[in-house]
Amino acid sequence: MKFIHTADWHLGKLVHGVYMTENQREALEQFVSIVAEEQPDAVVIAGDLYDRSVPPTDAVELLDEILFRINIELKTPIVAIAGNHDSAERLSFGSSWYKHSQFYLSGKLDNSFKPVQINGVNFYLVPYAEPGIVRQLLGDDSIHSHQDAMKALIGKMEETLKPNEPNVLVGHAFVLGGQTSDSERILSVGGSGCVGAELFEPFSYTALGHLHSPDAINHEKVKYSGSLLKYSFSEAKQKKSISIIEMDQKGQFTHRYRSLTPTHDMRELEGHLQELLDPTFYEKERLHDYLKITLLDEGALIDPINKLRQVYPNVLHLERKIDINDMKKKQSFNASQSEKKSEIELFEQFYTEMTTSEFNAEKKDAMVTVIEKVLNEEGIK
Amino acid sequence: MKFIHTADWHLGKLVHGVYMTENQREALEQFVSIVAEEQPDAVVIAGDLYDRSVPPTDAVELLDEILFRINIELKTPIVAIAGNHDSAERLSFGSSWYKHSQFYLSGKLDNSFKPVQINGVNFYLVPYAEPGIVRQLLGDDSIHSHQDAMKALIGKMEETLKPNEPNVLVGHAFVLGGQTSDSERILSVGGSGCVGAELFEPFSYTALGHLHSPDAINHEKVKYSGSLLKYSFSEAKQKKSISIIEMDQKGQFTHRYRSLTPTHDMRELEGHLQELLDPTFYEKERLHDYLKITLLDEGALIDPINKLRQVYPNVLHLERKIDINDMKKKQSFNASQSEKKSEIELFEQFYTEMTTSEFNAEKKDAMVTVIEKVLNEEGIK
Repeated sequence: MKFIHTADWHLGKLVHGVYMTENQREALEQFVSIVAEEQPDAVVIAGDLYDRSVPPTDAVELLDEILFRINIELKTPIVAIAGNHDSAERLSFGSSWYKHSQFYLSGKLDNSFKPVQINGVNFYLVPYAEPGIVRQLLGDDSIHSHQDAMKALIGKMEETLKPNEPNVLVGHAFVLGGQTSDSERILSVGGSGCVGAELFEPFSYTALGHLHSPDAINHEKVKYSGSLLKYSFSEAKQKKSISIIEMDQKGQFTHRYRSLTPTHDMRELEGHLQELLDPTFYEKERLHDYLKITLLDEGALIDPINKLRQVYPNVLHLERKIDINDMKKKQSFNASQSEKKSEIELFEQFYTEMTTSEFNAEKKDAMVTVIEKVLNEEGIK
Repeated sequence: MKFIHTADWHLGKLVHGVYMTENQREALEQFVSIVAEEQPDAVVIAGDLYDRSVPPTDAVELLDEILFRINIELKTPIVAIAGNHDSAERLSFGSSWYKHSQFYLSGKLDNSFKPVQINGVNFYLVPYAEPGIVRQLLGDDSIHSHQDAMKALIGKMEETLKPNEPNVLVGHAFVLGGQTSDSERILSVGGSGCVGAELFEPFSYTALGHLHSPDAINHEKVKYSGSLLKYSFSEAKQKKSISIIEMDQKGQFTHRYRSLTPTHDMRELEGHLQELLDPTFYEKERLHDYLKITLLDEGALIDPINKLRQVYPNVLHLERKIDINDMKKKQSFNASQSEKKSEIELFEQFYTEMTTSEFNAEKKDAMVTVIEKVLNEEGIK
């Protein structure tokens, strides 16, 4: 049994104010070609099909079209779940009709305990849910964290799970061991958003979504496919791919990647303005990529973003590298924070480091008055 | 061939700040019962399934559930189109999958020229579209009004329409002869939003949505079903129903109504506050109806809305009937505006009419100062 594992399409995503929909369409065209070529028994999409609960209409049309081509035209079963970016209710509309053509779309947890069977493999669908939802669903007041919730859900699945059959869990969660990047929203503080990989032990394979790198976790049986595209500059160095899994009737599997090559890559570029605008430099560059450019120049530059965009039309973000002297100031200021100083001493230090003028007696008197007033009002003094 | 004609469900509708979803659920439960009892060959929904392009999630879940019960559980084909309140793109998602169970949902015009055939009847689906969309679709620059658009669309349908078969057009439009009520948004000014009923001559029956009264047009073959519920007080006196049509193979049909009885009716109530709060009066009333109350009392009333809501919990709107003397004052004040008077004369007249106290010399002096100041600042003097 062969299936493709993908996740985190984030259709309708805006990156630095630019809609990724056309780029997503191109990547999905490649994806459909791979499905046509590989002829898998199923395509598994582990959540975050959309980037938000109410995606733009062109993203809705794109998803409809791509799923139609895979499921109806290529006659390939689809197993998909809602992620934290999807609206479970909106995504689920019509899902009862999809089952006829073996398109299993699970927005809510209700159906998680009864697996979907495709070619001898049992797929357990666990759409993203807050711990409170699972607590209510299972009537178990001890559930507070995502770890508690997943443990309870899997515990319930194990009541009927047949260990000698190939079982695949499809989930959308932050599984411990993974590394986050900027485009994954922090779900909760203090680690309660994390789920331990050991929970998935009963399954032959766990197809995850949520973290955007296929390398987010290094585990034999618990894997992220990674996102469809790079969705933030923190992902610039990641290689995006989809996973092809071939599983036998004992649940043993082989795993390989197939990469997607977007027309516009997302990457970082660093240099001096003059150098970046030099044809001998940029003629070797892929000029239409989505770029974060870091300028190394010191001193004032006139309208660098527009100059750069004349060569690189898709500059999404421009940064100036903070110069060495600034860095030193910053470091010495940060370091000094830990010493015990009075408020006025701290301010004097701050003022001296941040300006070029003298912190004279008059200025000091004025600040002393202000500090006194604030401390009095706060009842500290 | 028997079909049910309904329209304008407006799921997710807010009326005076109150969500109608629960009321809509009750009405739709009755609707499903009627479908189960009548066993029609099709259910036709002529647009505005939702009240807005992004309806609340409970409205999405309600529509999904009701359509599933009709189409899958009761095995009844459904023919539905998007209205002006629906988002064509969002509503259409998944519609390719629905066809398998004879659920034909048309959001966009693309499929309007190829009818859906159910039990020997050809249904032409014409979802709501702005004239500009039709102009583009047909490449006909002469299309500017809804009349032009519908005429061109029907013209194109006639190229392949078989006149000796029963043909039904399902549309969402403001067909001339209908009466509007408050809850139908004005589509455009100057009559260009209207469509002449004569255009539908080629069809055995035209199942319309948009106007909320089944009596909005009196035509032998072109009919509105009316909305599912009363959605504004201007509809308070309308009788809401669905239409049952039985059509033979020549397109001849009989037409009858079946009414829906909401738990909470929407109606208007008029009287003096004391009378409305009197148990001998209200014990005969359906207290939980959605009410617009018009109070006939003169003079000041202390917190009438909360007093009324203790008896009638669903008062949505409260009005005071402007009394005859107020009316006269208003009229005389309006009339006097046309005469040429000084600012202070106008204000004196206004003050005298609006208060019971004298406009004495002191007040006059104060106003003169204010008026002088304003006129100076505005550079009039």
